[in-house]
Amino acid sequence: MAHHEFEPTHFHVTIGSHEPVLRIKPGDSVSTWCVDAGGHDRNFEPITPGGNPQTGPFYVEGAEPGDTLVVHFDKMYPNRQTGFTGKLVAPWVVDPHFVRHLPYEDVPTPRPPRPDERYVDLWDLDLAKGTGRLRTARPGLEALQDFALDPMLGCFGVAPDRGQAISCATSGQHGGNMDYRGFRQGVTVYFPVFVPGALLHVGDGHAIQGDGEIVGTGIEISFDVTFTVDVIKGKRAHWPRAENETEIMAVGNARPLDQCVQHATTELMRWLEQDYGLDYRASSILFGQLIRYDIGNIFDPAYTMVAKMEKRHLPRKKAP
Amino acid sequence: MAHHEFEPTHFHVTIGSHEPVLRIKPGDSVSTWCVDAGGHDRNFEPITPGGNPQTGPFYVEGAEPGDTLVVHFDKMYPNRQTGFTGKLVAPWVVDPHFVRHLPYEDVPTPRPPRPDERYVDLWDLDLAKGTGRLRTARPGLEALQDFALDPMLGCFGVAPDRGQAISCATSGQHGGNMDYRGFRQGVTVYFPVFVPGALLHVGDGHAIQGDGEIVGTGIEISFDVTFTVDVIKGKRAHWPRAENETEIMAVGNARPLDQCVQHATTELMRWLEQDYGLDYRASSILFGQLIRYDIGNIFDPAYTMVAKMEKRHLPRKKAP
Amino acid sequence: MAHHEFEPTHFHVTIGSHEPVLRIKPGDSVSTWCVDAGGHDRNFEPITPGGNPQTGPFYVEGAEPGDTLVVHFDKMYPNRQTGFTGKLVAPWVVDPHFVRHLPYEDVPTPRPPRPDERYVDLWDLDLAKGTGRLRTARPGLEALQDFALDPMLGCFGVAPDRGQAISCATSGQHGGNMDYRGFRQGVTVYFPVFVPGALLHVGDGHAIQGDGEIVGTGIEISFDVTFTVDVIKGKRAHWPRAENETEIMAVGNARPLDQCVQHATTELMRWLEQDYGLDYRASSILFGQLIRYDIGNIFDPAYTMVAKMEKRHLPRKKAP
Amino acid sequence: MAHHEFEPTHFHVTIGSHEPVLRIKPGDSVSTWCVDAGGHDRNFEPITPGGNPQTGPFYVEGAEPGDTLVVHFDKMYPNRQTGFTGKLVAPWVVDPHFVRHLPYEDVPTPRPPRPDERYVDLWDLDLAKGTGRLRTARPGLEALQDFALDPMLGCFGVAPDRGQAISCATSGQHGGNMDYRGFRQGVTVYFPVFVPGALLHVGDGHAIQGDGEIVGTGIEISFDVTFTVDVIKGKRAHWPRAENETEIMAVGNARPLDQCVQHATTELMRWLEQDYGLDYRASSILFGQLIRYDIGNIFDPAYTMVAKMEKRHLPRKKAP
Repeated sequence: MAHHEFEPTHFHVTIGSHEPVLRIKPGDSVSTWCVDAGGHDRNFEPITPGGNPQTGPFYVEGAEPGDTLVVHFDKMYPNRQTGFTGKLVAPWVVDPHFVRHLPYEDVPTPRPPRPDERYVDLWDLDLAKGTGRLRTARPGLEALQDFALDPMLGCFGVAPDRGQAISCATSGQHGGNMDYRGFRQGVTVYFPVFVPGALLHVGDGHAIQGDGEIVGTGIEISFDVTFTVDVIKGKRAHWPRAENETEIMAVGNARPLDQCVQHATTELMRWLEQDYGLDYRASSILFGQLIRYDIGNIFDPAYTMVAKMEKRHLPRKKAP
Repeated sequence: MAHHEFEPTHFHVTIGSHEPVLRIKPGDSVSTWCVDAGGHDRNFEPITPGGNPQTGPFYVEGAEPGDTLVVHFDKMYPNRQTGFTGKLVAPWVVDPHFVRHLPYEDVPTPRPPRPDERYVDLWDLDLAKGTGRLRTARPGLEALQDFALDPMLGCFGVAPDRGQAISCATSGQHGGNMDYRGFRQGVTVYFPVFVPGALLHVGDGHAIQGDGEIVGTGIEISFDVTFTVDVIKGKRAHWPRAENETEIMAVGNARPLDQCVQHATTELMRWLEQDYGLDYRASSILFGQLIRYDIGNIFDPAYTMVAKMEKRHLPRKKAP
Repeated sequence: MAHHEFEPTHFHVTIGSHEPVLRIKPGDSVSTWCVDAGGHDRNFEPITPGGNPQTGPFYVEGAEPGDTLVVHFDKMYPNRQTGFTGKLVAPWVVDPHFVRHLPYEDVPTPRPPRPDERYVDLWDLDLAKGTGRLRTARPGLEALQDFALDPMLGCFGVAPDRGQAISCATSGQHGGNMDYRGFRQGVTVYFPVFVPGALLHVGDGHAIQGDGEIVGTGIEISFDVTFTVDVIKGKRAHWPRAENETEIMAVGNARPLDQCVQHATTELMRWLEQDYGLDYRASSILFGQLIRYDIGNIFDPAYTMVAKMEKRHLPRKKAP
Repeated sequence: MAHHEFEPTHFHVTIGSHEPVLRIKPGDSVSTWCVDAGGHDRNFEPITPGGNPQTGPFYVEGAEPGDTLVVHFDKMYPNRQTGFTGKLVAPWVVDPHFVRHLPYEDVPTPRPPRPDERYVDLWDLDLAKGTGRLRTARPGLEALQDFALDPMLGCFGVAPDRGQAISCATSGQHGGNMDYRGFRQGVTVYFPVFVPGALLHVGDGHAIQGDGEIVGTGIEISFDVTFTVDVIKGKRAHWPRAENETEIMAVGNARPLDQCVQHATTELMRWLEQDYGLDYRASSILFGQLIRYDIGNIFDPAYTMVAKMEKRHLPRKKAP
């Protein structure tokens, strides 16, 4: 149950079987930090190429293919006061005929944008109060002069199988760039383990983000992160799962959204059967009247949809 | 500002330019009732063929193509104590390889199911307390022996243009079978008017429904409904819009979900420009960090996605 | 086996249970004509509102729900020398980021375009030789000064069930606006019958059309059409089927294209089982190495995909 | 202009920046061989793990990011007499309700299948005549006792950027598992170069394959391959392009098919502008009446669609 302070010196823009930076044991926790999506540190200095650079990977002793890696996020919080965001909604989240009515001239392609004022909006954060302010005030956006933040991690996951190194622009069964605002402090995430040690990567802090990350960013900012790991031997999910105090969640990462729905719904049915003893008729009855879906991102090459149930509607978990 | 009590004698399973059953004026309200999706009345008697039969249409004096019809739902509530639901999630909301693990033998195709016990689950409602109970208890579903209802209307809308008569199985710019749980008592819905009188239809009450209506039904039940209409001359939306005390909502109806997202996001941008004076750069900034998406149904031929914003984040509405 | 000459006097822009214009018997043939998609006759005069106006419906004696209507197209050919086409590919068939690089200023929304020179390109046809010429020559398009036509019907079908009247902008199990270049002279099309008399509608001639109808039109032109009908009692397809001398084809109409693929593939498997005695293992073996898919349109609200097999790879048809 | 005989000793199941096996110069040609999708050599011996193992990568001197790699396939042909295929169409190419009617009991998940008789069908090839025979004859499949093969390569491409190693189960801008039957002997393929040397990989021979590769395989077989490379400096495509004697082709790899259409159509428009001087109005006119789309695969995580034009409809290429 050791606690590790880890100071990163290099970062990865893919999630893959990179050389581990630290070996930890089940029950251990790690305090570390992440650069922002563009590779800037707590001083807003560019120290590594952009593209959701990841801190890690962390090798978890005893995690083997076929196990589940448990990651509890004890803390995730911005560690500087300036963040940046994309300037316009993505052309694929509006009607095709409407695209030409949006002023895309200053929006670089491909995104996400670089953090200079031509390409982004800047935001000032009050980290003590947990609030944000759009730096350049605009008529009609008075509410953005003082509003509550909701910090979350956009991109994290474990090494995929077959030697793949998957871009941090996208996501899959290994996690990755899911951009789901439910991945906030206090959440516990479960990953299928594909390689020995699982190889956990973390990065891409958002001070806040709307559903879908439709401008290509949340408020992008460097983060301090503390997490605690565990391993469940011999139990493997197909997709990332998560829970907080009140809900359980299953994640589907794919395109189109319809396919995310399929992955997330199926994974939640499997979970309810494995851990709660509900057969598919029983989970159908429950889902029909009480399931909730949340959108992660609809910006990246793979979109993200989360299917979730409130714990108060579930039976007691089966004994392991 | 008259109040009308309307007793329906026949019902339509398409939304179209049918003979009006009542002519009303802007400001008038109507109290009436709807059979359930299967055509059963308050006594659970089958009085008309199933398929989301609609009460109406109501002709609103002065509503012309190019106007907006305003419908405020003063009341929507079940008027009997027994409801029914589909037995299994639809095969298209789970992974294709997973379909064969679901016990579809007793599920009729095409759905929605007929209300006899072989094909559906039955529910008993306590209308005074606003709670429901799954009639045949199942292990693990103890929470369903007493849970809060959340009544909503699944299918309603106005006559489409060009003489179309659109099946109540699906939805479009005219509304229709959207199955969105945000369409609950107290909501105000705005429809584009396509034909003189707008021709409002209402039906398909659900005592409660999960996101996506993924078993093909909410708890299907007959409803009492009271609504008040108004007309906004010379202003036309492209898609249904709605608001309640805290939120404004824009609806997109299509397949796949990605296209619903496009319609709903575009419509919300248009609305914010028309009524709140926010240009597309401003609404992009707002949406990037604060937009929310809700799923209506992912069961019907056209799916439904709702894009919404909290009113507290918006500026004051422009004077009309 | 009568032959009817039918002179249309009015047209429908939905396919539905409209008043029949002529009652015919199985074995009968009809020679008639259709206006172009914009409602112009053989003199390029606008005689009816645009939107793929249909000639008909024709009531086929003895056709009942559950039967199959057989329509053999003996002739379909342009009957005037000027056609028109849309000016630019639809914004949804190119990358969302690319849309703003296309000069959409003069393209009306919604389409299809009106036939004046500001909105369309005009074409001159040599009906004797079967060739076309782009009226306003453009550098690089020299090949379009003399090229072979391939006439086809874009929109035709039978009345859908439940009293629906479906817009001729779209398509479904009843047929409709499929815009498939395989529907050329000599093809035999099979429709499921939903209402007594089937109620056949025909219209929307194209002198030629590329895959996908991605500019929103083929070369739109008025047509002379001759067809012969028959009825197969007690046999019902789920989707339109077709055959010519060398191929059998099954049609899927939906969005997205992935869903068209599902409908068309399933329908072809059903057909091979019904008429050729191939179980699903056998048709899988055949499809894996020899199936072909053609795109109808990817422009309309519902897209169209055709799955087809060459007859030389099939066994002899079972005796009926 | 050297010719290299290359004998592979190991294979990769990702396409990435692996150690080059051979350095070649523009103008050089290479004769080599590939194992089949399951890792079996010309003796049907398993010599490497399955998953479309690739021969290579080949480092092409002088190819730099921003250039185009030209690969002309002088020869591609099976080098053994036994191939294998999947047993059933994928559940996602049929209607969701239809899935349970297919006998999937013996089909392993995930696929592609392993080559033992329980999981696959076996085929005997006559390499001199270029014909195939289904080993276990089935009633109704008599045509499969002697039919013409059409050999093609299913998976090949160049290393992607950012250090990615992309699974050979899928495809992208770098090429990969496109499974397009137009990639047959004599084709020239153009790839965007992402890394120095381009790093060409080749594998996954099919003796023949239907559109869509809907049983998860063509007739999988080991191949002899000869190719010649060239580099076009300072010219970069966004997606793979190809040409044969009569056609030019642009490839889009994504999900859903609608997005493949967007990529392929856009790429073909760009190509016609770059090399043939056609602006987007001109290519729209051409595409509207003469474009063709072919489906590559609709089985893999990313689908493949090809947009193509016949050369006889194009102007002369611009001087470089």
